Amino acid sequence: MSKAFSFALKAQDGAARTGAITTPRGIVRTPAFMPVGTGATVKAMFPEDVKASGADIILANTYHLMLRPGAERVARLGGLHQFMHWDGPILTDSGGYQVMSLAKLRKIDEQGVTFQSHIDGASVVLSPERAVEVQCLLGSDIQMVLDECTPFPATREEARASLELSLRWAKRCKDAFAAMAKPGQALFGIVQGSVYPDLREACARALIEIGFDGYAVGGLAVGEGQGAMLEMVEATAAVLPVDRPRYLMGVGTPEDLLASIARGIDMFDCVLPTRSGRHCQAFTWGGRLNLRNARYAEDTSPLDAESACPAARYQRAYLHHLVRSGEVLGAMLLTYANVQFYEELMGRAREAIVQGRFASFAADVKRRYAESGDEYED
Amino acid sequence: MSKAFSFALKAQDGAARTGAITTPRGIVRTPAFMPVGTGATVKAMFPEDVKASGADIILANTYHLMLRPGAERVARLGGLHQFMHWDGPILTDSGGYQVMSLAKLRKIDEQGVTFQSHIDGASVVLSPERAVEVQCLLGSDIQMVLDECTPFPATREEARASLELSLRWAKRCKDAFAAMAKPGQALFGIVQGSVYPDLREACARALIEIGFDGYAVGGLAVGEGQGAMLEMVEATAAVLPVDRPRYLMGVGTPEDLLASIARGIDMFDCVLPTRSGRHCQAFTWGGRLNLRNARYAEDTSPLDAESACPAARYQRAYLHHLVRSGEVLGAMLLTYANVQFYEELMGRAREAIVQGRFASFAADVKRRYAESGDEYED
Repeated sequence: MSKAFSFALKAQDGAARTGAITTPRGIVRTPAFMPVGTGATVKAMFPEDVKASGADIILANTYHLMLRPGAERVARLGGLHQFMHWDGPILTDSGGYQVMSLAKLRKIDEQGVTFQSHIDGASVVLSPERAVEVQCLLGSDIQMVLDECTPFPATREEARASLELSLRWAKRCKDAFAAMAKPGQALFGIVQGSVYPDLREACARALIEIGFDGYAVGGLAVGEGQGAMLEMVEATAAVLPVDRPRYLMGVGTPEDLLASIARGIDMFDCVLPTRSGRHCQAFTWGGRLNLRNARYAEDTSPLDAESACPAARYQRAYLHHLVRSGEVLGAMLLTYANVQFYEELMGRAREAIVQGRFASFAADVKRRYAESGDEYED
Repeated sequence: MSKAFSFALKAQDGAARTGAITTPRGIVRTPAFMPVGTGATVKAMFPEDVKASGADIILANTYHLMLRPGAERVARLGGLHQFMHWDGPILTDSGGYQVMSLAKLRKIDEQGVTFQSHIDGASVVLSPERAVEVQCLLGSDIQMVLDECTPFPATREEARASLELSLRWAKRCKDAFAAMAKPGQALFGIVQGSVYPDLREACARALIEIGFDGYAVGGLAVGEGQGAMLEMVEATAAVLPVDRPRYLMGVGTPEDLLASIARGIDMFDCVLPTRSGRHCQAFTWGGRLNLRNARYAEDTSPLDAESACPAARYQRAYLHHLVRSGEVLGAMLLTYANVQFYEELMGRAREAIVQGRFASFAADVKRRYAESGDEYED
């Protein structure tokens, strides 16, 4: 097991990049999509199928795992990788985002966040130092700094005050990480700044000054719309170092991913493929399908003839029957097919970048999604 | 694809038998446990894992499938095997049992049963002829006659009247089957007679007179207790032909299966392993476990070190976490491990019979289940 964390670019096509992140637990081909394994499981998938789908890395949620089963318990049980049967790299978020979206009675001060668990109401403190400690206890390969995910909308002054707090926390995370992390583990900074390009730039520069192994763009896909999101991505990517991976957090649709890759993003995570799979929605090379739709009741064609996923070979009529009947197998098959579609999308994007035809590839996928498939239900 | 249906005994050990049923879709090693695939899916399992668990044959429910997606629709979609990605043999029940247990406003007369669908309230008629027609539309390899599952308790006169109706229906099923079935398909009769050994015997003899490819023992495990159940099994098996498979319907626990094999039964189906898997219960070679139990929170041992099932290699602590968190993967893993335990139990039973040590094998399993494991929750 090598001890190094590194990132190497292989090719560029316009602002789009392809390369590889090397971690002690394996290589992550970029652009990369990370399936979300919130509670130490990518919902409704066997870990070996996550691997078979083409995923090199998964994301797990610090907030959920620190509450249940608890970071110290996971450490006693041998760490998150062994616990959840995933021997590849794992990225963990810092828990900050879920504190904002899920916990009750939050109180934020300079020290950190105090909140009540959404599971049992217990009072919990999350400071920058504790966020890093928890991620080290889990054994995370790529850790994220604790930040305040700026609410949307925010005035310029609110956004500035919020990102300044996040920057002070980022520095404390870096210090804690230097004291606690093992060789080969990485820590990423998170750029905030709401929808203000100059704040995004300033935040990015301040994070670069502190120095991180990679940089994430946070606080987007929270209601600002795709146009504003892409503008922020572009403004941020313009000042991020070329030789560090760039991660757009919590995004998004296939169209979002391609538009962000075109602006220089390397990594993504999103619950969309897994959550959609549990809600009868499929992402396919022929567009988005809603398998509840009566039009599929006698459709003998496979879910996605173009996908190599075993789950995509099932008849649409059968999947329709399963989801109408509320059968678990429906969620299992659609989740698997969706995750593999996202991974195949990244694979084809990497190939297109190497071959210098990323723009036409992205336009083709965008056209497919615009012209075919069903109405999307969120 | 051979056209023959046949049964050959390989060895006997006391009344316990091992052999093989040959069907056009493959061989069923007996004693056999059939996982239940009610709605064209063994709940929470991929079909390839059902196969990998050791199952040679599965059961599907005529009642459920005739209501949703409909037998004619399944036929248009290529038949049940193609629909549900299972190319091995399928046994279908006749729908009679579920009409009694699930449907509303049942009306039974000589012609058949009229009932309201539990799904949409539609009025549906199930006659002996329609039960066979539906099973032929599904493409079932082993079909069951429509019978009236005698309620429990029943007086001797009620039981006699009920089984006489069932016998008249059995004859009509045989006639319909002769007109409709394809070569290689089989039809089994069902012995009723409540808890009256002489009625059981008389019913068996009358069915043998009509002549079936196999014989089932029905109307048991409905509250009569294990003692009465085994007495009926013994009385029935005593008069059934040696050269036809014997199927005990809807039974049961590992202990029930072994006690019934000891009395000459060859085939079983039961929802217990699959339903238990969705309710945190595991069947293992070390007894029954309730994974919700706090004692497993930091238990790093695998679910079942003696099982060859991939799902049984997961840490108990992880399974505990999954079931406590309500994660689908918990149900997926426990279902897989339970079904494979049942299949391994049948495999070891077959081996023990060949080697003339079935009684000591069964006693060993019974002791394990009595001495270890958790309290069982129904």
